[in-house]
Amino acid sequence: MRTAKPQFESLEKCLSDHLPPKELAEVKRILYGKDIPKLDINVETKRLAEEHDFEIQSYNFEANVEQLRAPRIVKIGLIQNQIVLPTTSPVKAQQDALYNRIATLIKAAASCGVNILCLQEAWTMPFAFCTRERLPWCEFAESAEEGPSIVFIQKLCVQYNMVIVSPILERDNNNGEVLWNTAVVISNTGHVLGKHRKNHIPRVGDFNESTYYMEGNTGHPVFQTHFGRIAINICYGRHHPQNWLMFGVNGAEVVFNPSATVGDLSEPLWGIEARNAAIANSYFTCAINRVGTEVFPQEFTSGDGQPAHRDFGHFYGSSYVTGPDGSRTPGLSRTRDGLLVAQLDLNLCRQMKDSWGFRLTQRLDLYAKSLTEATNGDHVPQII
Amino acid sequence: MRTAKPQFESLEKCLSDHLPPKELAEVKRILYGKDIPKLDINVETKRLAEEHDFEIQSYNFEANVEQLRAPRIVKIGLIQNQIVLPTTSPVKAQQDALYNRIATLIKAAASCGVNILCLQEAWTMPFAFCTRERLPWCEFAESAEEGPSIVFIQKLCVQYNMVIVSPILERDNNNGEVLWNTAVVISNTGHVLGKHRKNHIPRVGDFNESTYYMEGNTGHPVFQTHFGRIAINICYGRHHPQNWLMFGVNGAEVVFNPSATVGDLSEPLWGIEARNAAIANSYFTCAINRVGTEVFPQEFTSGDGQPAHRDFGHFYGSSYVTGPDGSRTPGLSRTRDGLLVAQLDLNLCRQMKDSWGFRLTQRLDLYAKSLTEATNGDHVPQII
Repeated sequence: MRTAKPQFESLEKCLSDHLPPKELAEVKRILYGKDIPKLDINVETKRLAEEHDFEIQSYNFEANVEQLRAPRIVKIGLIQNQIVLPTTSPVKAQQDALYNRIATLIKAAASCGVNILCLQEAWTMPFAFCTRERLPWCEFAESAEEGPSIVFIQKLCVQYNMVIVSPILERDNNNGEVLWNTAVVISNTGHVLGKHRKNHIPRVGDFNESTYYMEGNTGHPVFQTHFGRIAINICYGRHHPQNWLMFGVNGAEVVFNPSATVGDLSEPLWGIEARNAAIANSYFTCAINRVGTEVFPQEFTSGDGQPAHRDFGHFYGSSYVTGPDGSRTPGLSRTRDGLLVAQLDLNLCRQMKDSWGFRLTQRLDLYAKSLTEATNGDHVPQII
Repeated sequence: MRTAKPQFESLEKCLSDHLPPKELAEVKRILYGKDIPKLDINVETKRLAEEHDFEIQSYNFEANVEQLRAPRIVKIGLIQNQIVLPTTSPVKAQQDALYNRIATLIKAAASCGVNILCLQEAWTMPFAFCTRERLPWCEFAESAEEGPSIVFIQKLCVQYNMVIVSPILERDNNNGEVLWNTAVVISNTGHVLGKHRKNHIPRVGDFNESTYYMEGNTGHPVFQTHFGRIAINICYGRHHPQNWLMFGVNGAEVVFNPSATVGDLSEPLWGIEARNAAIANSYFTCAINRVGTEVFPQEFTSGDGQPAHRDFGHFYGSSYVTGPDGSRTPGLSRTRDGLLVAQLDLNLCRQMKDSWGFRLTQRLDLYAKSLTEATNGDHVPQII
């Protein structure tokens, strides 16, 4: 897909290009925290990235050495990508093209030794919910247990000994054939470990998702994988700190945030919310956004007083990882497909709990009580 | 007070000095959101600032024009300052010097037409809780109803028709003479409207505050002032999204965050947390930090394996205001006393609720239930 206008490539690249080294170090410290060192990328992966035109970055989050616990090292991968074929192509052709592209990116992740990988929100399709049209978009929906993308991903999980989080448009065939926005967790043995349905559904700008599916009914599950405890906060859920909070309460060490979000609407918030969640909950967060401008056959309006149009604006990529100490990697490109690899020492989560003490001091009992009172129908706010 | 080492003056100044205009605009958009225009500062105020050596900045947060509601314009002021006398001076002399300095800064705020002003955390004293010494620091504590700083501020409120939030070290003379970290809200008629006690108390680095006072018992009050509904999230409470949430649930339109925080520990988080809260809760937030390095007569340790020492590190100022749309002002200086004035149209709060819909979609009933379950003694986390 072509982008509608030339796009600014990357915040971090711009700063590196223009600031003197001493000032750059201070700006990076204030903006991003402790410097996260880069990891070397092997020749095979570099070759793949060049041949298939995607960006690759790799970083290393270290923790202090402890006496009684060995380091708990895990490599995670985040993939951001454009759709491959025009949205006017046959559904099956669009799916196959995406499977093919993702297979290449996952191969690169495997070649970097990634243990747990997460794809972007609804990666199997264009983000067509802007249109409010039912066809052909609902045809992309599939079973979260045995749909075609599940079968496709299961094979890769086994092949690469990799846990993969696969966010799809789910059709719940056993319960009224309704749709859900769902992330499926597939284990490194190829089994569907479980799924999580998006808890908070937007009705803003072109995000007409409430036309298609309801608020999730799966709570805040944490998945105990072979490599660590993970959870998924899907897209718009990142605006809700209480959603992030519950994944922490249930013991998550890494929370993925597969998203699809555009330009002026959300970009100034992008660096804030997933990072705030990592700090407040002493876990790693992984913000993933798709890339490019998607153009649709049907015209749609945005509820902003402007004429009907056919494109969704620019999905700005910029996927990044934040540590429980608030330090973060640079973002991937705003315009290119990319793979971000981060090696984590999960021991850092508990180390931050012990030093900052946010879990110790969070007074959840107070908030359980206050929120229970606040959601009584006859609640009177505490106004003086 | 002198700073221990030369300090970087300001993130925003550094970016403006080095980036070309086009790149600067894009970097500012991604980092800070919609551009917040400056307001003119009158000659009298500029003269005061020059004569008394403090920075002054003024910004204007605008909202859309509505048909049925007139704009609700309020001017708020944030003051950040160093202590005036060495911490070895007599208590009364330190207090008087601070009153004198603050009187000048409040005079400048009045001259800008400020309606609601907030001072920094425990503004009446050095931030001596690092020392864990009782004397002379507990002598700075005072009644929140009739202590000397209350009487001093009440006069200024009446003189300038200004609501002032005054964060002090409280001694509750009627209840066991215990200490609290308290923000007192004094109305523009000079009455004590009420108080809020800090909800979350740190035990990290040099922040040994739990030695002195307990977690607040005043809930999450919102104060209906003549100029708008305000609340106060004191210092370490900014790390807790659920604390910010409850002030929103109770109807706050502006939440002040009077703080005292230093250097490497928190500076990379400073731009994240108050801003995330403004976004998530559709209100304005005002982050205020003190300035300078405070040196104490008693030696103390930081629990970081380093030798005992006498200074608290650098309080980096950088006070700023964020709107409910996530856009923010630049920070005040990292090194100088300052007054930040922001004109707000409070209508922006509801406008953001209507467009982003975060209040609509926050599912508080789900979290009331989940947190109640999670705080039962026999709770089993949702782990799959």
